[in-house]
Amino acid sequence: MLALRPVFFILGMLLIHFGTAMAFPAIADLAVGNNEWQVFVASGAVTVFTGGLLLLANRGPVELGLRQVFILTTVCWVTVCLFGALPLMLSDLPLSFADAFFESMSGLTTTGSTVLVGLDSLPPGILLWRALLQWLGGVGIIVMGIAILPFLRVGGMQLFRAESSDRSEKPLPRLRQVASAIAATYVLLTGACALLYGVAGMSAFDALTHSMTTVSTGGYSTYDSSIGHFNSPAIDWIAVVFMLAGSIPFVLYVRMVHSEPMAILRNSQVRALLYFLASLIVGMTFWVHAAQGISMADALRLVTFNVVSIVTTTGYATTDYSLWGSMAVVIFLTITVVGGCTGSTAGGIKIMRFEIMILTARAQVKRLIHPHQVAVFSYNDAPVTADVQISVAVFSTLFFVSIAAGTIALNALGLDFITSLSATATAVANVGPGLGDMVGPAGNFAGLPDAAKWLLAIGMLFGRLELFTVMILFHPAFWRV
Amino acid sequence: MLALRPVFFILGMLLIHFGTAMAFPAIADLAVGNNEWQVFVASGAVTVFTGGLLLLANRGPVELGLRQVFILTTVCWVTVCLFGALPLMLSDLPLSFADAFFESMSGLTTTGSTVLVGLDSLPPGILLWRALLQWLGGVGIIVMGIAILPFLRVGGMQLFRAESSDRSEKPLPRLRQVASAIAATYVLLTGACALLYGVAGMSAFDALTHSMTTVSTGGYSTYDSSIGHFNSPAIDWIAVVFMLAGSIPFVLYVRMVHSEPMAILRNSQVRALLYFLASLIVGMTFWVHAAQGISMADALRLVTFNVVSIVTTTGYATTDYSLWGSMAVVIFLTITVVGGCTGSTAGGIKIMRFEIMILTARAQVKRLIHPHQVAVFSYNDAPVTADVQISVAVFSTLFFVSIAAGTIALNALGLDFITSLSATATAVANVGPGLGDMVGPAGNFAGLPDAAKWLLAIGMLFGRLELFTVMILFHPAFWRV
Repeated sequence: MLALRPVFFILGMLLIHFGTAMAFPAIADLAVGNNEWQVFVASGAVTVFTGGLLLLANRGPVELGLRQVFILTTVCWVTVCLFGALPLMLSDLPLSFADAFFESMSGLTTTGSTVLVGLDSLPPGILLWRALLQWLGGVGIIVMGIAILPFLRVGGMQLFRAESSDRSEKPLPRLRQVASAIAATYVLLTGACALLYGVAGMSAFDALTHSMTTVSTGGYSTYDSSIGHFNSPAIDWIAVVFMLAGSIPFVLYVRMVHSEPMAILRNSQVRALLYFLASLIVGMTFWVHAAQGISMADALRLVTFNVVSIVTTTGYATTDYSLWGSMAVVIFLTITVVGGCTGSTAGGIKIMRFEIMILTARAQVKRLIHPHQVAVFSYNDAPVTADVQISVAVFSTLFFVSIAAGTIALNALGLDFITSLSATATAVANVGPGLGDMVGPAGNFAGLPDAAKWLLAIGMLFGRLELFTVMILFHPAFWRV
Repeated sequence: MLALRPVFFILGMLLIHFGTAMAFPAIADLAVGNNEWQVFVASGAVTVFTGGLLLLANRGPVELGLRQVFILTTVCWVTVCLFGALPLMLSDLPLSFADAFFESMSGLTTTGSTVLVGLDSLPPGILLWRALLQWLGGVGIIVMGIAILPFLRVGGMQLFRAESSDRSEKPLPRLRQVASAIAATYVLLTGACALLYGVAGMSAFDALTHSMTTVSTGGYSTYDSSIGHFNSPAIDWIAVVFMLAGSIPFVLYVRMVHSEPMAILRNSQVRALLYFLASLIVGMTFWVHAAQGISMADALRLVTFNVVSIVTTTGYATTDYSLWGSMAVVIFLTITVVGGCTGSTAGGIKIMRFEIMILTARAQVKRLIHPHQVAVFSYNDAPVTADVQISVAVFSTLFFVSIAAGTIALNALGLDFITSLSATATAVANVGPGLGDMVGPAGNFAGLPDAAKWLLAIGMLFGRLELFTVMILFHPAFWRV
């Protein structure tokens, strides 16, 4: 029998912290005299109480083996999503259980697709809660990407074992140490972003909520028209900088401060991300300028913001880029799956995997020419073993297979092709907006059937936990001793 | 310097045979008193003459190294396509050079997309030539898949080295021996198919041309409405059997006759193909029956024919399945890339690669659970090395990347999304029909801009030669000594 006591113990701790966080939206609602503060207090109490029970019932030595960590990861994420949906369910909003779970999952996975309409007139509690979900989800995923995934060897993440753990099979001792340095960086970045948003003209509340969803590359806004609401170039450029800041490996910040000032610019993944974005932005700016008759300055701003928003998997919008023609639809659909860097808040396939795949393909071509040479290559000074190459390729293939399966499923529910495809892609890549009238940058996920919302929420979870972490739980061999 | 004399010598031989084949359409036109017989005689003479010159100018020892075989493969295919386009250019048909090259490439790669309208009233010479292009292309690709690709180690094909060569680095000695056994099987299958088509009511000419394009899984018809023209269940079912016969590994026929009567049914790839088709057909039949109100018998026949036609990459149509709703569009788009078995006339990613990828993913999951076990597995009794696993994964990824790139390119030329995506997919997978009004089963590629025709012809070549065979020629390392 698999000992699940330590799993429930940690889950309990997590719920206590998570429930406590509900105090903030309660305070926000109290401050403006909104009665919904009671919803957050009640939900918080239930969450903390459940967490306390789990904690007390499962005390004992916290020893986690490999399989317990797999279970822990998925169980924690799903349970926290359920409790995160609680205030949304209990509030005055006309949300079904599917809606509330979708919104909570979309928040915690930093996806940013929303089923809420009329954000502009919602009370501050709900808006702050949505921002908090993304902010907490963001730091959760960074810590997971640095301390847990390399240890689970998911999708080539074993490449990063050296930099995040002492190569032992137990991730937890080092987890706390890494987590605190990362958390400090995360808080600092969010503070700096909020400050600059404020200087650029946002209200304190908007600056706080938007900085939380920018650095977490989440993309929830407090306005239906997203960042486009402010219509401010300054705010657009600040957002671009901090979306990027949220999508590069957070260990690099720590390393930059401690020992290596140029760590970020020397990192192959960061450079590849920047090169990719720069070439895409330059090409698209000229094209949008020429084809849409928008001035170069506006074209540069609109293209940069929306391309960075999608590639960093944030999902803010400042314009309905799907109106730029069918070419734009294809490009935005393609870049939806790219994603940011590993060990950041960004989702998607991620730059590291594209680099490894290109290096693998190159090595393969070399082997075709010289069959007797052994094809070895390294990435950021670490040798890339055949095991890592296979992991990465299998992960990427599975990513596309998941999107194909989701597309067929949504299609069977009656949604059109572009809606099915783009909604699945945006969910699995944790981006936010899809394409088409319904789920596009100017649309909303509210109109989807409940079954589609459940499927997309599951897609977000799969994508966020790098597919294998969840899928392995469905493999019979996992449950055999 | 790379010695290209043996390459041109073999090309010369090939052109002499290819030019000689033009006698058949000349005879067909002569028989009905059509003046276009002169076109075929002239084209044939030019082709044979060019071949003869190449042969005489490059006499000497035929020693082929690895790189010469790579060059040979692509150079032969492109050159033969050019000469195959000659009669189409010189004929009375109003075809541009792009049209003629597209039609010839679509024929020789057994794709089956056509730019010709009004097939029903064309002279027999042209119709026979189109069928011949596919028939010759079909046997060419089988021999390539058995004798050349395993030796080039393209896309995991090194798995089949044992069964097709003596593991030496020189493929040619064994090539002739394998080729003659395969050619005999191919002729027998075509004859059997023609005979049955005739019994089922086709004219001798229709039976001959359709048997050629059935067994080669090419899909050129002599009627605009394809096999649907005959409106005969008997013909549909005969086509189903022989499309399947053309899409399983041809070595299995030889092995069945020589030593192992159950070779075909025991083969993992054949079984996987049949299981996949059976489950798809059963599911879709019930759905088409329920959703479209078609009787079960008709639904079974229509679904079986069109699903088998697409998965075997033949591309005949008996109905416009795109009218079955948006669900059908997604399914047909998905199955377009699947393909038949390796070592057959079928294109696509191919069943073997899906099996290897599933086995690889399974082995990966097992490794996640037991990191200290070495994950080894075998396929059809051969061990699958890490090298093969990586080759297969890289190939499949590249397949999707090629389709994405082609889609973006066609889109930039002004075609809509579904047309761009489905036309690229159907070209790279060598299937035939795409989706949408233009390139769909009821449409025609004639209306595409010339640039799109060139791109799609290149896509067919890439797909047919398994991507790497062509791409490697563009790698600088290939040309260094």
